[in-house]
This record gives sequence, C-alpha cells and structure tokens, in this order.
Amino acid sequence: MLKMVGFDGDDTLWRSEDYYRAANVEFAAIVGAYVDLDDAEVHARMLATERRNLALFGYGAKGMTLSMVEAAIELTDRRISAADIERIMALGKRVLQHPVVLLPGIRQAVAAVAARYPVVLITKGDLFHQERKVAESSLSGQFRRIEIVSEKNPATYRRLLDEFDLAAHEFAMVGNSLRSDIAPVVRLGGWGVHMPYHVTWAHELEAELDPRDAPHWRAVAGAAEIPAALAQLDALAPA
Amino acid sequence: MLKMVGFDGDDTLWRSEDYYRAANVEFAAIVGAYVDLDDAEVHARMLATERRNLALFGYGAKGMTLSMVEAAIELTDRRISAADIERIMALGKRVLQHPVVLLPGIRQAVAAVAARYPVVLITKGDLFHQERKVAESSLSGQFRRIEIVSEKNPATYRRLLDEFDLAAHEFAMVGNSLRSDIAPVVRLGGWGVHMPYHVTWAHELEAELDPRDAPHWRAVAGAAEIPAALAQLDALAPA
Repeated sequence: MLKMVGFDGDDTLWRSEDYYRAANVEFAAIVGAYVDLDDAEVHARMLATERRNLALFGYGAKGMTLSMVEAAIELTDRRISAADIERIMALGKRVLQHPVVLLPGIRQAVAAVAARYPVVLITKGDLFHQERKVAESSLSGQFRRIEIVSEKNPATYRRLLDEFDLAAHEFAMVGNSLRSDIAPVVRLGGWGVHMPYHVTWAHELEAELDPRDAPHWRAVAGAAEIPAALAQLDALAPA
Repeated sequence: MLKMVGFDGDDTLWRSEDYYRAANVEFAAIVGAYVDLDDAEVHARMLATERRNLALFGYGAKGMTLSMVEAAIELTDRRISAADIERIMALGKRVLQHPVVLLPGIRQAVAAVAARYPVVLITKGDLFHQERKVAESSLSGQFRRIEIVSEKNPATYRRLLDEFDLAAHEFAMVGNSLRSDIAPVVRLGGWGVHMPYHVTWAHELEAELDPRDAPHWRAVAGAAEIPAALAQLDALAPA
C-alpha cells in the first residue's frame, strides 16, 4: 500500500525547460555573430560547459547563466563585447523571473492525489528560485513537505524516506525525468509515474532503468492520468 | 530549559567572508584599470549591485559572481574586455572552491555543546555550495539536522521550530551575524550566542535588536566561551 506520493516541480507542475530553451536559442544568436558555427554546434559547446560546471555550480538558472558567459568568452576567443555579455546576463535573469505557468490539469491531479495520500514536493535546483516558484504556484498548501535538494539520486531519496519514516515500497514519485524522478526511486524498490514533457534537458534524458523494474513504473500522457496510474501501482504495492 | 542548539555555518564554523573579501579586492583592481574611482567607491557600487540583485539571486557565491560581472560591465560603461570578465568569473569560482577551514576551537565547542543538547546546523545561502562545505567540514556527524535556508528571518526560524516541535524559549542559536542568527531568534522569544567574526559582510551588520531583549543573548570572544554562555542562558530559560 502506498503511504506517500512525491511530485517533482519543474516540467511536472509548471513549465520550466521552455524558458531555458528560449535562452539557449538567443544565446546561439548572440554568439553566432562572432563564430563560424551553426546553432547546433553552439548548443553542444554550451551544454558541454554547463555539464563540466555542474560539479561546482549545481543545477539551476544562476549556474546556467555563469556557464553561458563562460562558454561565450571561450567560443569567441575572448572577442565578445561587454554589451553582448550583458545581453547574455539578461537572458539568465529572464529565466529566473519567468512566470509560473502550471501544466494543463496538474492542479486537479494534485488535488485528487492529495485527497487520497499525503503528498510532498521534491524538486532540485536553485533553492531561492525554487522557493519563489513554489510560492507563486499557489500549490504549496497541497504539500505536507517541500524538499529542495541539490541532486535526485538514490541517496537523496533514501535520506528523505528515512525522514518520512517510510519503506521504499510505500512511496511513489511523479515526474517528467526518468533520470531524476523515476530511476532512483524504482531502484530503491519504490514506484514511479513518468509524465514526459514535450522538451527535456539533454542531461535528464540519460537514465539507467533496469527492464526488470518495468512493473514498478507507468508512463502517462498527461496530468489527468496520474491518479489512475497511482491506483494501479498501489494495487501492486505489498501491504 | 534549552532543548536544542542551532549553529550557523559561514564564519561561525568555518571561514567564509575572508574569501569574499579577497575576491572583492581583486575585483576592484580589475575594474579600477578602466575607471577613475578609488577602491572604496568600486566596492560600494559592487555592494549596491549585489543588494539590488538579492531579491532575484538570493545569497551565495554564484549570485555574487553574477553581480560582479554586472557591476563591472556597468561601471566601465561596457568597455571591459572579455578577458577581464573571464578573470572576474575565475574570482567567483575560487570562492566556490575555497577550502573549508574551521575556526579556532569550534570543533571542541560543537562537541561540548552536542554532549549536552541536540544540535542542528542552520545555514543560509547556495544549497549546493553549503552542502559541499558541510561535507568537507567533517562536522556533519555532530548535527541531528542540517537545514540550508534561503533567508534567516523570524518566519524561517518559526517554521524550523515547528518542524523540531519546540517552543522558541527552548531554542538557542549560535552565530556571527546579529541580523541572521541572533535578532530573529530573540524576537521569537529564543536565545542567542553571538560570536563576532573579524570581518562581516556589510549586509549582515544591520540588525534590529530591541534593548529589552538584551537578557536573551550573550556575546562571546571565541568558540571556547560558547558552552559557558549557553549554560548561562539555559539557567535563565523557563522550565
């Protein structure tokens, strides 16, 4: 029997990756004026810089902005103007200030799940930015706890389950990232509902899922299907 | 009777502000080559940029780095070279990578306090950076809970006390910032041990302490005095 359900935030409750993508497109246009590279190559170099810096910056828009500035300086062999770096900084600020737009049907889905199980929000990234989004989402009242973590791996979920005083098979996670929301929870013996978003950051696409764990998770096409998918998993969960 | 003691992290357990100061000095030298301002004026402009951005970036080295780049571009009227912006970015990265150096006597003081009360670490700033410092400090085993928060105000401490299931008069906070560690806890009816650091960020110097609350906090000259100061406050705390 499930005793708690966790929801991811970015691209599960509200739009996020779209704003990062839009920043990347504008970044490529700014840097493209200096270099003989197509947009895909600029994107690839930017992603490489961002991933190299993850161990130092962690996730989130501030780290992305710093990585954009760093990549722009490197890609242009230090030829980029201060005015264009200022434009890149403004792209990062815009991501930090993007409006919180809930995904279709998610408010009803969270309410339906919360009527049946205690629900918690488990989101990763920049503490300050995530807190602002939670506050603006008008969903915070639905969640028993709001956990903002620096990484979503099995160790993180193990620590949270210990704090919640739950066994893994009593917990299900709902999210758009196989890597961060589904794979680590399923690996511990928990359950997952995967709701893919129409765009996903390349980094989040890499997930190690064991085919033998397939019974432990479901994919849904939209928020309206989340309650039924949880009911199916709940029927499988040991009492 | 006290039932829990909280410790601040930066400049209470380990050195922090020194690294930010060193970055500020180098920042002034880089920007000073472009402008006819003395170092104090450059510092003041940098601080103004940083404080203006606090509502968007929150605390921490990544926000400071973004503010340094922004201030450098503004102060130089967009004349600063990409190579110099790269140097400013490197200053920020150095702050993020600074070694974790414990303050004199703090390891023994935390151990002595932990032998008598449950202790928790309550630190603010960048989640990722603070987690790294906690991990490298070799002190994490002493703390029942580690709370990394975006702001240390009465609302934050109220939420934490609720989670710890404590009344304010059962809790004392040890830290170097009157603004963040002492004033908000004392305002709630709790207790404070203030251990000033030899340098304090200008922003943290502004605290609203009511003289009538003076019996609720003590200042100490160093970590060795913390256990005795807590014992004095404990004797005053209602049972």
